[in-house]
Formats: sequence, structure tokens, C-alpha cells
Amino acid sequence: MRMVDLISKKRHNIELTTAEIEWIINGYTNKEIPDYQMSALLMAIVFNDMTKAERLALTQAMVNSGDVVDLSAIEGVKVDKHSTGGVGDKTSLILGPLVASMGVPVAKMSGRGLGHTGGTLDKLESISGMKIEIEMDQFIQQVNDIKLAIIGQTGNLAPADKYLYALRDVTGTVESIPLIASSIMSKKIAAGADAIVLDVKFGAGAFMKTLDDAKELATAMVEIGRDAGRETVAFLTDMNQPLGFAIGNALEVKEAIETLSGNGPKDLEELVLQLASHMVVLAKKAANTEQAYAQLKEKLQNGEALQKFKEFVAAQGGDTSQIENPELLPTASSVIPVTATEAGYVEKIDALSIGIAAMKLGAGRATKEDTIDMGVGVVLNKKVGEAINQGDVLAYVHTNQADSQEAIEYIKKAYEISSSSVCSPTLIYDIIA
Amino acid sequence: MRMVDLISKKRHNIELTTAEIEWIINGYTNKEIPDYQMSALLMAIVFNDMTKAERLALTQAMVNSGDVVDLSAIEGVKVDKHSTGGVGDKTSLILGPLVASMGVPVAKMSGRGLGHTGGTLDKLESISGMKIEIEMDQFIQQVNDIKLAIIGQTGNLAPADKYLYALRDVTGTVESIPLIASSIMSKKIAAGADAIVLDVKFGAGAFMKTLDDAKELATAMVEIGRDAGRETVAFLTDMNQPLGFAIGNALEVKEAIETLSGNGPKDLEELVLQLASHMVVLAKKAANTEQAYAQLKEKLQNGEALQKFKEFVAAQGGDTSQIENPELLPTASSVIPVTATEAGYVEKIDALSIGIAAMKLGAGRATKEDTIDMGVGVVLNKKVGEAINQGDVLAYVHTNQADSQEAIEYIKKAYEISSSSVCSPTLIYDIIA
Repeated sequence: MRMVDLISKKRHNIELTTAEIEWIINGYTNKEIPDYQMSALLMAIVFNDMTKAERLALTQAMVNSGDVVDLSAIEGVKVDKHSTGGVGDKTSLILGPLVASMGVPVAKMSGRGLGHTGGTLDKLESISGMKIEIEMDQFIQQVNDIKLAIIGQTGNLAPADKYLYALRDVTGTVESIPLIASSIMSKKIAAGADAIVLDVKFGAGAFMKTLDDAKELATAMVEIGRDAGRETVAFLTDMNQPLGFAIGNALEVKEAIETLSGNGPKDLEELVLQLASHMVVLAKKAANTEQAYAQLKEKLQNGEALQKFKEFVAAQGGDTSQIENPELLPTASSVIPVTATEAGYVEKIDALSIGIAAMKLGAGRATKEDTIDMGVGVVLNKKVGEAINQGDVLAYVHTNQADSQEAIEYIKKAYEISSSSVCSPTLIYDIIA
Repeated sequence: MRMVDLISKKRHNIELTTAEIEWIINGYTNKEIPDYQMSALLMAIVFNDMTKAERLALTQAMVNSGDVVDLSAIEGVKVDKHSTGGVGDKTSLILGPLVASMGVPVAKMSGRGLGHTGGTLDKLESISGMKIEIEMDQFIQQVNDIKLAIIGQTGNLAPADKYLYALRDVTGTVESIPLIASSIMSKKIAAGADAIVLDVKFGAGAFMKTLDDAKELATAMVEIGRDAGRETVAFLTDMNQPLGFAIGNALEVKEAIETLSGNGPKDLEELVLQLASHMVVLAKKAANTEQAYAQLKEKLQNGEALQKFKEFVAAQGGDTSQIENPELLPTASSVIPVTATEAGYVEKIDALSIGIAAMKLGAGRATKEDTIDMGVGVVLNKKVGEAINQGDVLAYVHTNQADSQEAIEYIKKAYEISSSSVCSPTLIYDIIA
């Protein structure tokens, strides 16, 4: 086989075989195929797409390029959840304890990542003492004991995906449904889950800007998952305004605790319950999503979900007094209200602008070396559809900076006010199963 | 400027500016832009094409990446000719002396190249003593003295094109009208010609397989030439059978001598006269191509064209007795006839197969290190449209090998015989000016 011939094949829109794709991914992982040939192939894929069979082959070749986590020692059906990422998305913090409280084993490997706020691991580390580096056998033991563990990625999962992503990032080939779908699914499959629930977000604050693009990506991932023998369900959810009220690490942990106590923002609670219902059904702990939903709602009300969160924090060395008294979590030195300059109805809250505001306050990382300020962020006070009067507080800036004017401007810019009444937006547009 | 943004721009089919293209070509020539970004851009160009302005900018940036030959010390309009290459194409050997005999200055830099036979330089070197490495001032002096010099490329012409071509060769991005057109034109412009005549060949034995592709390429090159201030004319000519009869280095020199003596194959003579007519008009040595044609035909008949060839050979140290007595040129040790196994009419002679046969006999180079056997090759005896009887000689194999069966098989395979009569094919399909 010669790489140049396979590039030509793809360029001329002829399907690559599974053996050819395996050869390419092995060769690239072993540095036998140079970057300049791989990037040409990636650009040809951008234009000519990949067939269903090619997407599966690419995903599996990337899975096989590294370690595959063996979760077989954990009893029950292991269900993982993945979000394509959005502003104020703290669902993992809530979903884990919630479905674990139903007896579903949650063995989650999570990331730090770059973005407007930290990743799930960073958010957890705003709790004093939380350990997120745990040995594999202890990780499995903890899941068998209390049904929940969340740790940093261990082992060398899908290294081919890592190399490919770094190359795509500098060659204008990031946006591509088959490449994004296989990248996400290779990591999820390598992490060992039996079934996967995906939350594909779209809108200003998400990677996918339109519902159509999100649907295409979701369908691609569900197909790959199913073809790879993993039951997969994908949600299409709106990221045209931030999820819940809080954006920022400790602020989001507080909101997660409120939600686990049955007092969360309605949009966040509803999304969590819907995602959790599907996870519980995939884990065969309920006959259907309606039953699961009712039982999960009960777990939020009766304190069992919050209790599971405390057990989890305790198991990983965290200070549970901060869960009982969230005011003990890191806080910012000052809280500045951002007020409305006109009356009307909130028509839009640009999630990307809010995310940038949080980043400017120090809640996120632009490079791997940046440190995160755990206490800072933005807490929205008004969401889309709400009526406001001039002078009403739109949002609060939690800051440790002497001057937060830039962040405040981003927040003001994010709010669009209409003179006529506005419907509350749809959060879940579709579920692809 | 960031290369990744320019790749994205092209990927999304937004026109690159001249400044952006200059920045890219400078950066790539200086090794500041890595191969993996360049190959991604090239593949995006393959799919999204380039606008007229982009093609011109790319060509000029490649010209400016190296030396530009200064032919201003040569009197008159310098006209260069370029062929996209075909089997049995010895037109340069004939055109040079023919137009020089009309007073048109021909300052030609030629190549060796890889292929079924050697390049023009190799063919010339089948004449004993021919020197093709000549200093620039001597080269210019010779053109002023006798109107003709043909030498190897000197200086560092369009190095960006050289680097880009090497990258395209291994990344499946060779076939692309804007990239081919700018590559050819950058070399011709850097070589210093005032006007350019292009012979774009199409068919089995050519790089362009169809008339449509050839027309697109020809039009692209004529536009670039004109936009760059070089009058450019392009011929579209058939390469579905070899040009003339001879394929092989000394064999082609012999056929060139016959043609310069007015006794050449009809197709070759006609193409040479047509190309030469346009060169003469571009050089302002005739009012129109009809007048030029008649005068050029006269030069073939009255011996002046052949005389010019002898002057040129003498000026570059070659043995003119070999021109007077072509049987003194290198010959093969044996000549084997290839005969027809059935009667009928020659419908097709696959030029590519004939080229491969010549290569197998040792007439060409597969790698730069290969040496050429000057005396060997193929001489066709029947061309498309001719009637044949069983046992008639189709072609002669000139060989120094003990076993030439493989070459013979390629020749047999090349001939397609029809039972009904076949028209003689059109040679010149169009002239784009």
C-alpha cells in the first residue's frame, strides 16, 4: 500500500476499505506516514465525507491505536455520557450521583480541557481535598462499592485521535462531521462504556452552530456507536443561552448541589432528568424512560441523589462539609450586579459572550499552563423569556479582579432585549436513538 | 497572518488575496510554513479551484521565489515553446532551427526529465560532442550570432514550484488545473521569454486524458500568460497515437533531420509548421500565420532549416557529419519487425503502451540515476487509418537487448485493428489565442 494512492482514492471519492484505514491509522500513529500526507487526506475527507463503513473503520482503528479500558470487573451495564460542550454545562456533576443513586454503575473518566470554564475535573477540584488521580483497581473497587467514581483519564486512550486532532487544529480540518464523530466515539469506546448517551449542543455557545449540523453529527455518532456494538442515544439540545444560571467552577458545583437537592434551575433539572432517564434505561434499571424519569425525580426530592454525591466526594477525599454548606466552597472577593438599561423581555443571551466574560474573569484556561480561579464567574439572574424593568439585575459578576469592566461589557452585549413578549425557548429539540 | 486561517479561507471557498498568496509562497520557500499545512491548502485548492486573480498571483509568487533569466541582451522578441509532453514528441528539435532560420531568436532552456524517452537535452546528446552546459553570456552571444541555442536550465528558476511539485507528487494533488497551469507558466516566465506557444496534448499518451481537460488547462495558461504580460497561444493536439514514427533518442534526431529536410512524417511536419507559424507571428517576423506558414514550408524545402540545425550543432561542439549522414548516429544492434496477425485498418495506437515499450528497451529513465541507451526505441511503420494485411510490419523494435519480448508485447497490445475503414485522426483540435 502507498499512502499517495489512498489519498488519491479518497480525493476521487472512492471508498477506502477497513484494511486501508487501519493501515493509515497504524502508520500515522507509528510516525511512518508523515503529517503532510495525513493532512492532505484529512482535507480530502472534509470535501468528500466518509461512508458509514469508513467512519466505523476510522473509529475502531483509533480505538485500537492505544489502550482500551477494561471495565468488565464492574457489575452491571456501564453507561457513559458525553457532552459536546457548552457554557454553564455542569450536567456531569449532577448526572453521576443521580443515576448512581438508582444503582447504575458510573465509571467516568473526565477531562480538564481548555475553555470558558474548567472541565468536570477542575470543577470537582474546587471542593477541598478531592483526588482525581486514582489507580485503576481502586477506581473499579469504588464503582462497585458506591456506584460512582470520576477520575482523570488514565492510560494511553486513542493516541491516534490525539495526534490527528493536533494536526487538524493547524490545517483547517477541524470542522468535519466524520472526523468529529469518529474522534468523540473513539475516546468513549476506548474508555470502556457498554452504552453511551450523547448531548450534542448547538447554537452560539456550542461547537455546532445550527440544529441541522448538530443532527448530522448526532446521527453519525449514534450510527458509529451502534455499529461498534455500543447502544448509543443522542440528545440535540439548545446552547443559545447558557444552561442553568451559574458559569464558573465553584459556582457550578453550588448549582449542582442545589439541583441534586431538588432546587435547581428548571432547564438544568429537566435536561438532567431526561439524560438520566435514558442512561437508566440503557443500564436496564427501568423498563422505560417515563418510569425512570419519575423515579429519578423522586431521588432529587428525597435527598438520595445528594447523599450519593456526598458519598462520592468522601470516597475521593473531598470535604463533605462543603457539600452540606456550599458557602464554604471558594468564593470571589466581590459580586457586581449587571443591570438592564431598558425594560422589555429577554430575547437572547449569547452563550459565547457569557463564556468569554467568565474566561476574562479567570474561570477558564486559554493554554494548558493557565491556572483557574475557582471562585469567580457569572451568575445569570434573568433568562430568555423573562420580563425585565430598567435597573433590574440581569446577571452577577463574581470577581477577584480590581477591574472587571471588560467582562461586564461582554455580559451586556450578550443580552438582547425585545419590546414584545418572548417565548421561553425549547431546550431539547430531538432525541436520536 | 496565520496559515491555518488562510487554509480555512480557501476551504470555505473565499478568494485569497495576492498579498496572502505571496505570503504563503514566500513562507513555504523559506521553510517557515510546514509541508503539512501546505498540503492541506493544496488539497483545498484541488476541490475549490482558484480564481483568475489567484492563479496569476500564485504564478508570479513562484516566479519571484527565485532567479528570473534576463534575455534583454538578445535582440528581437524571444518566443519560447512548451509541450505538456507526449510520446514521440521531437518538435523542439525541429522548431528551434526552423524558426531561427526565419530570424526569430530562440534562447531555449530545456530539461532532461523522466519519461518514456529522454528529454530534448538527452536527444541532443545522442549527437557526438554536443555541449549543453554553457555560461549565460556565451548562451546570449550564440543566440545573437546564429539565433539559436538550447541549453540545460541554469540558475535557480522558480524554486517554490520545485518544492510544491515534490509535495504534490506525494499527496495526491498533482491533477489540478490551477496548480498545473501556474507550475508550467511560472517556469516559462522565469526563463525570460517575451511570448509563449504552448502545445497542450491530450489522449492516452498525455498527462491530460480528455479534450475538455486539455482545453481547460490551455485556457488557464493563456489567461495567466496574458495577465502576466506575456503573449501566449495554446494548441490542443492529439496524443492518442505517437507523433511521427520514431520513439527513442537518436531515432528521433534522425526523424527531426528528415523533417528539417522536408521529408518528415506528415503529422509531425504539419504540427511543426503550425506551431512555428504562431511563433514567427508572435516574434513579429510575419504579418499573419498564413504568410509565416508558406515561408516556413519554403525553409524546409530549400535546406535553410537543416542548415540552421547544422550551424547550431557546430556552435555547441557537436559532430555535424552525423547531421549530414544520420546513419552515423548511435544505432541499436538489432532491428526486429513486429507484424500484424490480422488484416484490417489501424483504429488506434495506444501512445502510452508504445512509450512503455520504448522505456523497456532502455530509451528512457525511471529514476534520475538511470542511463539512457541512445540508439534504441520503436519506429512505427503503420499509423491510424492505414490498411494492413496479415504479416505486414506494424513497427520495428530497435534493441540492444537479447530478449525484447516484453517491449514487443506492449507494441502488439497498442495496436487496435478494425475490420472497417478508419478515418485518419485530427491532430490539431483547437488553437487558443
